[in-house]
Amino acid sequence: MNANPSEPAGVPAPVASHIVRVSLGERSYEIQIQAGLLADLGSRLLRIAKGRRLLVVTDRTIGPLFGPVLARSLQAAGFDGSLAELPPGEGAKSLDVAKFLYDRCFDAQLDRSSCLVALGGGVMGDLTGFVAATYMRGIDFVQVPTTLLSMVDASVGGKVAVDHPRAKNAIGAFHQPRAVFIDPLVLAKLPDRELKAGLAEVIKYGVLDDRTFFEFVESNVGKLLQRDAAALSSAIEKSCAIKARIVGEDEREREGGPRALLNLGHTFAHAIETCTNYQGYLHGEAVAIGMAMACELSVARKLLSRGDADRVRQLIELAGLPVKLKAGDPPADDLHAATFRDKKARGGKLRFVLATSIGTTKVFDDVPEEAARKIWDLPRD
Amino acid sequence: MNANPSEPAGVPAPVASHIVRVSLGERSYEIQIQAGLLADLGSRLLRIAKGRRLLVVTDRTIGPLFGPVLARSLQAAGFDGSLAELPPGEGAKSLDVAKFLYDRCFDAQLDRSSCLVALGGGVMGDLTGFVAATYMRGIDFVQVPTTLLSMVDASVGGKVAVDHPRAKNAIGAFHQPRAVFIDPLVLAKLPDRELKAGLAEVIKYGVLDDRTFFEFVESNVGKLLQRDAAALSSAIEKSCAIKARIVGEDEREREGGPRALLNLGHTFAHAIETCTNYQGYLHGEAVAIGMAMACELSVARKLLSRGDADRVRQLIELAGLPVKLKAGDPPADDLHAATFRDKKARGGKLRFVLATSIGTTKVFDDVPEEAARKIWDLPRD
Repeated sequence: MNANPSEPAGVPAPVASHIVRVSLGERSYEIQIQAGLLADLGSRLLRIAKGRRLLVVTDRTIGPLFGPVLARSLQAAGFDGSLAELPPGEGAKSLDVAKFLYDRCFDAQLDRSSCLVALGGGVMGDLTGFVAATYMRGIDFVQVPTTLLSMVDASVGGKVAVDHPRAKNAIGAFHQPRAVFIDPLVLAKLPDRELKAGLAEVIKYGVLDDRTFFEFVESNVGKLLQRDAAALSSAIEKSCAIKARIVGEDEREREGGPRALLNLGHTFAHAIETCTNYQGYLHGEAVAIGMAMACELSVARKLLSRGDADRVRQLIELAGLPVKLKAGDPPADDLHAATFRDKKARGGKLRFVLATSIGTTKVFDDVPEEAARKIWDLPRD
Repeated sequence: MNANPSEPAGVPAPVASHIVRVSLGERSYEIQIQAGLLADLGSRLLRIAKGRRLLVVTDRTIGPLFGPVLARSLQAAGFDGSLAELPPGEGAKSLDVAKFLYDRCFDAQLDRSSCLVALGGGVMGDLTGFVAATYMRGIDFVQVPTTLLSMVDASVGGKVAVDHPRAKNAIGAFHQPRAVFIDPLVLAKLPDRELKAGLAEVIKYGVLDDRTFFEFVESNVGKLLQRDAAALSSAIEKSCAIKARIVGEDEREREGGPRALLNLGHTFAHAIETCTNYQGYLHGEAVAIGMAMACELSVARKLLSRGDADRVRQLIELAGLPVKLKAGDPPADDLHAATFRDKKARGGKLRFVLATSIGTTKVFDDVPEEAARKIWDLPRD
């Protein structure tokens, strides 16, 4: 079959490579998506790194899974790398852990030409990015996301942060990565529940911006759940491209800017997460419920057809995600109060991203409080 | 004498106002310099503030001196202001104090439209700027510098930072203020030694970039030491303008960029400060000695005439500043080692800013180690 002597039989055909360019002037960067990319990361990094010293930041769950292959690849490319392994979980997003990492940066003798590598989910990306944004007034960092959620969300946008005891992500910066390297094969190790949670954000991009992509997800949800590399690569590429376009127009989330659209479902989701102390639902699960609720509110405001709202709800369910609260969840009044609390304290208006069709959304700040309140009374599981 | 009924006799003529514009694209801002400006700060801030909530950060030495007039002015303009008073000294530039200030930001219910006001010297400016750079991913801050050094140095450039136990200014960002408000009358309260230390940086601007300005300082050093408001305003304006032009060309201190010129005298000064544990000399005093040493090295390298070097040394002395080390200062070998330590550890070259005439300087990275070593053997006091 293969007559070309330079390509001996038995070598698999190269896996399709996808590149999404995030256009932000001198802060532009590429998201490289390719199955098997992890083993090749060193040579890819060589093309963009200013120096040879780097520090890989990961957690004790992810480190043992992908650290060795990454380390071999970095070493082969001639990097002088160090590793910091942190306890897994949101607790790592604190100023105290950032302080610990500054010490590791000094231990590794990192200077302004060095680079941090975030290997893990959104927590590792946010934390590592914050340290990179502030160590020596800002050094390079690259992201190697290992969850579907961080591949399609945290890898675009440059939002980096740690939590403050009084608010999540309250201490942070906008600091763009120099590159993002996505290897869909790492998703083979992702727990099922987290894969589904990531699909919530994938579905979100279709609803908020692109009906054709929504239909792609509808047609491929089975393959995505089976972790088909080609389907995942396409879904990740398209999700990143949609977010990249929006972020390119509104890098620092200005008042009234399009970046607010990315919060489709998030006003409700944040209230759910706050009232359940971030214990009951994964972020993507809360977004799934929030998105179903945003569609219901869109129908109630006569913006969206019943048919489109049902179709969104069905796709969320097909992806194995919740579309309603559980009977034992906090009372509607508490959830409603949580929706308003933050905004009221800051003298701001409550904003909802609502859909006018699948693929078209707008920010509304004239939703009457009663209309928002009713959404919490929808039937529960 | 005054026939205009709207300007009754007895009202003093308006004090000359100076404005330096720092041109950094969308991050451009004004440095407003005017005697008596402090009482008028509220209405000036009103023109640029996005919201009405703000937090004034100061220390317990400066707060009692200027806090009340500032508070009245802010209140009269309708601001909802809070005050955080910190212990004075470099110790405030720590992540722990930054953490304390994040709490105060939450207490004051600051949001992304709020503003921090740094009232004090360089420490307050650097610390407050760092908190502003990172609270909610960056909010506005304005500087109200109260030392000559911070007026001519920290008020231009956007370098904000806290110290790390292993290196000063190691945790920071580039975050430009929205405006800088300079009232030369506040210098009436500045201790004599600190006024002189500030003059070291003023002289530096003349030597590094502008012979005419150097001559202005020569002619006015008496008035400056007597705190003549007009002479001080001119010296501050010109110093800020020189730094603003250089920073405008090189906002983030790129490798090989002109911003390095601002380090005239600083390679020696940092070694002196490090070896004396930041106890023996004020920063400006170390810079004064460092500048005299840089001129000697320039002469030794046959770049600068003996006459020009003497003239710089004489002006530094006229300003009441040291030009040589004291007999009891650390040994030459220690100082020399300190000059090289940092750079060697990071694999970098040692750089010196040397003068080719008064008003013209260049960065050299080819100075032989022996030539630099000899400077530390110059006679001591």
